[in-house]
Amino acid sequence: MERRHKTKWVAVALFLIFPLFSFAQTAEKDHLSKPRALEMQFDSHLNRDNLRNWMKRLSARPHHVGSPYGKENAEFMAAQFKSWGYETEIETFHVLFPTPKTRVLEMIAPVKFTPTLSEPPLKEDATSNQTNEQLPVYNAYSVDGEVTGELVYVNYGVPRDYEELEQRGIDVKGKIVIARYGGSWRGIKPKVAAEHGAIGCLIYSDPRDDGYFQGEVYPKGAYRNERGAQRGSVADMPLYPGDPLTPSIGATKDAKRLPIKEAPTLTKIPVMPISYSDARPLLQALGGPVAPESWRGALPITYHLGPGPAKVRLKLEFNWNIAPAYDVIARIKGSEYPDEWIIRGNHHDAWVNGADDPISGMVATMEEARAIGELVKTGWKPKRTIIYCAWDAEEPGLLGSTEWAEAHADELKNKAVIYINSDSNGRGFLGMGGSHTLEKFINQVARDVVDPQKQISVADRTRAWRIVRGSPEDRKEARDRNDLRIYALGSGSDYTPFLQHLGVASLNLGYGGEDGGGSYHSVYDSFDHYTRFGDPDFDYGLALAQTAGRAVLRLADAEVLPFEFTNFAETVAKYAKEVAKLADDMREETEEKNRRIQEKTLEAAADPKETYLVPLPQAPVPFLNFAPLQNAVSRLQQSARDYDRSASHFAANGQALPAEKKKALNAILMKTERALTRSDGLPRRPWFIHQIYAPGFYTGYGVKTLPAIREAIEQRNWQEANEQVEIVARVIQGFADEIDRAAAVVAAATN
Amino acid sequence: MERRHKTKWVAVALFLIFPLFSFAQTAEKDHLSKPRALEMQFDSHLNRDNLRNWMKRLSARPHHVGSPYGKENAEFMAAQFKSWGYETEIETFHVLFPTPKTRVLEMIAPVKFTPTLSEPPLKEDATSNQTNEQLPVYNAYSVDGEVTGELVYVNYGVPRDYEELEQRGIDVKGKIVIARYGGSWRGIKPKVAAEHGAIGCLIYSDPRDDGYFQGEVYPKGAYRNERGAQRGSVADMPLYPGDPLTPSIGATKDAKRLPIKEAPTLTKIPVMPISYSDARPLLQALGGPVAPESWRGALPITYHLGPGPAKVRLKLEFNWNIAPAYDVIARIKGSEYPDEWIIRGNHHDAWVNGADDPISGMVATMEEARAIGELVKTGWKPKRTIIYCAWDAEEPGLLGSTEWAEAHADELKNKAVIYINSDSNGRGFLGMGGSHTLEKFINQVARDVVDPQKQISVADRTRAWRIVRGSPEDRKEARDRNDLRIYALGSGSDYTPFLQHLGVASLNLGYGGEDGGGSYHSVYDSFDHYTRFGDPDFDYGLALAQTAGRAVLRLADAEVLPFEFTNFAETVAKYAKEVAKLADDMREETEEKNRRIQEKTLEAAADPKETYLVPLPQAPVPFLNFAPLQNAVSRLQQSARDYDRSASHFAANGQALPAEKKKALNAILMKTERALTRSDGLPRRPWFIHQIYAPGFYTGYGVKTLPAIREAIEQRNWQEANEQVEIVARVIQGFADEIDRAAAVVAAATN
Repeated sequence: MERRHKTKWVAVALFLIFPLFSFAQTAEKDHLSKPRALEMQFDSHLNRDNLRNWMKRLSARPHHVGSPYGKENAEFMAAQFKSWGYETEIETFHVLFPTPKTRVLEMIAPVKFTPTLSEPPLKEDATSNQTNEQLPVYNAYSVDGEVTGELVYVNYGVPRDYEELEQRGIDVKGKIVIARYGGSWRGIKPKVAAEHGAIGCLIYSDPRDDGYFQGEVYPKGAYRNERGAQRGSVADMPLYPGDPLTPSIGATKDAKRLPIKEAPTLTKIPVMPISYSDARPLLQALGGPVAPESWRGALPITYHLGPGPAKVRLKLEFNWNIAPAYDVIARIKGSEYPDEWIIRGNHHDAWVNGADDPISGMVATMEEARAIGELVKTGWKPKRTIIYCAWDAEEPGLLGSTEWAEAHADELKNKAVIYINSDSNGRGFLGMGGSHTLEKFINQVARDVVDPQKQISVADRTRAWRIVRGSPEDRKEARDRNDLRIYALGSGSDYTPFLQHLGVASLNLGYGGEDGGGSYHSVYDSFDHYTRFGDPDFDYGLALAQTAGRAVLRLADAEVLPFEFTNFAETVAKYAKEVAKLADDMREETEEKNRRIQEKTLEAAADPKETYLVPLPQAPVPFLNFAPLQNAVSRLQQSARDYDRSASHFAANGQALPAEKKKALNAILMKTERALTRSDGLPRRPWFIHQIYAPGFYTGYGVKTLPAIREAIEQRNWQEANEQVEIVARVIQGFADEIDRAAAVVAAATN
Repeated sequence: MERRHKTKWVAVALFLIFPLFSFAQTAEKDHLSKPRALEMQFDSHLNRDNLRNWMKRLSARPHHVGSPYGKENAEFMAAQFKSWGYETEIETFHVLFPTPKTRVLEMIAPVKFTPTLSEPPLKEDATSNQTNEQLPVYNAYSVDGEVTGELVYVNYGVPRDYEELEQRGIDVKGKIVIARYGGSWRGIKPKVAAEHGAIGCLIYSDPRDDGYFQGEVYPKGAYRNERGAQRGSVADMPLYPGDPLTPSIGATKDAKRLPIKEAPTLTKIPVMPISYSDARPLLQALGGPVAPESWRGALPITYHLGPGPAKVRLKLEFNWNIAPAYDVIARIKGSEYPDEWIIRGNHHDAWVNGADDPISGMVATMEEARAIGELVKTGWKPKRTIIYCAWDAEEPGLLGSTEWAEAHADELKNKAVIYINSDSNGRGFLGMGGSHTLEKFINQVARDVVDPQKQISVADRTRAWRIVRGSPEDRKEARDRNDLRIYALGSGSDYTPFLQHLGVASLNLGYGGEDGGGSYHSVYDSFDHYTRFGDPDFDYGLALAQTAGRAVLRLADAEVLPFEFTNFAETVAKYAKEVAKLADDMREETEEKNRRIQEKTLEAAADPKETYLVPLPQAPVPFLNFAPLQNAVSRLQQSARDYDRSASHFAANGQALPAEKKKALNAILMKTERALTRSDGLPRRPWFIHQIYAPGFYTGYGVKTLPAIREAIEQRNWQEANEQVEIVARVIQGFADEIDRAAAVVAAATN
């Protein structure tokens, strides 16, 4: 489900030796070459033909959750994992999955127009004609409804867009809004529209963001053509992902379910996605003020805001069925630490054929698992348990992974060391997101994988990209910082339940940026499309297998788990500065805004021929008490340095940790991420318990770091902001306690 | 000809009393109310009906230079000025003015397409059907030629666009380029194209910059429709404006003329403007790489760079005729200082009907002249000579004003106090450009004119606009600086020969910013268009008459000419900082670029499926010696403060200057701007002698301040930069000498 930002990557790499956790290996000199040899052996098993053949097979027919072919795929994969030596099972959950029964959209004024709501088969695309099995264009978890109203164009439909409308005297109450895709996760658009009183919501793909403005359209080029439309979930995922009827518990056959009417993550108003050929007559029929410049797309029209005279009727009814979701779970038991789990996953369900999303990541994951199976067959035994997962029902809202994580929450909290995710994958640069306690670890992996196009490390290539394409700050950091900064995880793929609901350290890996295209969530996300534009030779599929495979192998066999805390502490310090600056910036903006209102500058500058409503003054932004957070961060930095020094000192002495110390140390390390959670969760969304990373309440996929503090400030809830500073500070202090415990174990061993 | 930047204004106003030159008035208490009373009387004569009626008459038929109706208009205006009591003459020059004989443009591959090259009559626009008298769509001073070649899209066609093309391996040698309007003055596009070896140049209006992206198109709205095209001059005006055959001398009947073949300001290659409906098939037929994002316009296509497969043939032949240009010159002789001239002008020729450009400014100028005539009829006598000018042949390249200025150069250098220009005018905000020695003066005028829509001063309204719409720096300055910063003059209207060739202090005044539209240089620049979208009630026509009229009245009667030097000194100090920063920034950029080349970062980041040529390293930017300039600016600031103090001291004593001192002081003051010139002119363009302001060699209309230094740096000519620093420093020292002389006159009177 995750949508890769095709040209935007978040943060640096010089060739630095892996400084901290090499100590165990350094100590045991004769083992030094063993991991490298193992990885070379692993590489030798990888075969690009498998990726191509499996993609062809898995994307041959539509395979959304509940579809016949989805089940076939799960069974096929389970058989494969078994054949590679994995203990494999299909774990089935029963989840709410609405599919369309009635889809009516028509413009009734000023002229009649009936959108097609369909993506036509193309002769250049072999699977695009499987209309019988394709899910039509729709948004899952829209409510049923029939509404008629004037249309208003709301740009991306995020909160600040409604402020712009308000200043122009435009109210969406009782209206149907039309928003363009982009600027936020799609589920935010109907949520914010309903908050402002709208009765219906259309979401269209504008060719500026997703069409001919970007490049030639399919089938001539890779980009979205005028009939292509984007399916997708609009559930209120920032509240909780997974089955809407079973929050926080596994959706097993007999689980206690909410009545559908009470499910809080369904939308409040009917929602429907459309293509740009369907949207154009609607937008063209809008009157009212011309849209602000940054709101205008690439249709050859003058963009107006409305409301009206365009008036539309939208009628939606769904089959509110419970569908079986088939998670394929495949294990190799650890030889020394069977209760320390390295979990690796990718989803297998798609909106339609899904060659890119998710099969491109799934086939790389399978090949990685197969090669590990080969290692086992030739005598290698992982110290820790390795679990490969192929999730179902990710597309409607991370259902397969979430239900599994909820169903096994206690065991996972006890045993999970890490969750490593991938999703769509393509030609380009390595994107690395995740827990910053793993930043040094994954950087070393990236230094050890060779870019298939350039024969330099993938770390070096990403670093070059940041130097050439990044902001001046990115460039400076890319040159000066030892490690490439990894991005913080918001949501949009299956790491969310592990990281944000269970506190399991997580990574999200994938290549992209040179695989431009616009097939996302359309029937044209096909084998034909992917093998022309995505990663034609599966070079980067192999690179992903090498990258995630190295991570799995190193974690499975590490003497001491490679968590590290100085990068994490530096990152949290950065976030702490950001939230303080956010409050300062808002204070300044509010002062400026109020000054303009008071001095009547806005009226003086406004064009009297256009409607302009002077906004109401806002309460000034008080100075907040960030001291508890700053003190906690300072303590965290000290603890991180202490552990680092202990470990280095130990390594320098050339000693190996005694077995029981190693065990005690790993037991602490594997659970450190849990200490970043708080059982009460975030304010008003208890499912999300991680205090450093969360998807934004008003961004959806987009991450909010230090979310409780940051969102309280953004929402001008100053009391809550002050309270959350104290709460988060305590969590960080507790995390520092864990680091101190780990340092004490090492220190005790050296004395 | 000038194109107003509809939404961009260059620089602040609090209500400050006019601090310096009030001293003469303060001294003569009984005269205090006189000027105000006079201005109120002036205002009472203004009649908006005249503006409307004259616009209707003057724009009733096409009236380009050499047209029958152009001559009729000149004669009509001359008769009007005479009837208002002005000594009036029509001064005729004989100028090269090519008109099209053959215009052939066709796409010959990959498909045939023949552009219309015409703007159709519209029933909603009464004059658009005067096809017999309309000049067709063309660019004046394109050479004759017939070329066939592959097409390359070059964005705005400025030098850095060619660097982008080069990096993608695209060479325009032997090709025909298609550039969009904008980003530079149009004449720069064929100039730079020819420098890079192109054999032909098309310039089209992209709807992103000038069409439906901006607003509804004509006749539904004000913006350029798909058939609208922009005529205009493409002479190499930054070399010299005016008649191409008579540089630096008046184009009188018997003037010595260059052979046409030797005229250096004609283009090197044939050039043709087209509409976006004519451009679309051409652009759509381009292959090659997708254009960089910022190059893409608003046509519903994927923008590619080419070259080819689109191939076009362009054949142009012109009638190279000498046309008569009729300048209307109307005078009221000064009663006390007849040899101190206040010159006020606007052009009267248009490309077609030209209701906006130039008639909107011309009718305001006429009404201003008429009201002054009324004052004279009721007994007022200006102390100084007032000259109203209606210039012909501005559109092809400032020919009417330039030839007049050249023909009367010696007398003007001796007698001209100021030249005040206007051109197109419309609803909105006051734009003020000119000599910064007049910044305080024109700010006081702007404080004394009431905005017709808001009933606050036009200065306050412009200030509000800058606070609300400007950059953070603009906003800060708009709040904190006493005077609104006026913009520096580049070129694009008739102030150029006065300011930049003769060193006559100049101002350029006009309202706009709420009169959005796209009629510029098309047949749709009509009375119908202007009275719907420009300034329907001529409110801002009256505001312009009040603004420029006050300036004329105050200057004509000032006891001491209101030149002031502290704002000027502050402005030059700012420019000096800018050029030093420019060199520093270029040094840093060059270092960064060379570092990327050396470290192979560019290759590492590049997509191997796209052509990417690593640029050659550039010589490092040396540190330049800005000390002479900094010392001169420091001296200038001191001299400005000294004069200010002398004058203030004098005013505080309540004394009037003795008549002979006043005369001596004014004689110095009126010529101070001349001290900013240098007879050798700028490097390689001796016609431009002003050392502070010039149009950019590669921007055309866009100003370059401290041009000799700035352009040497931009062109990486370090030796010339160092030399020009010394030269410009000497000019500034000489100017400071003049201020010191003025201060000495005042000081002598006070002792």
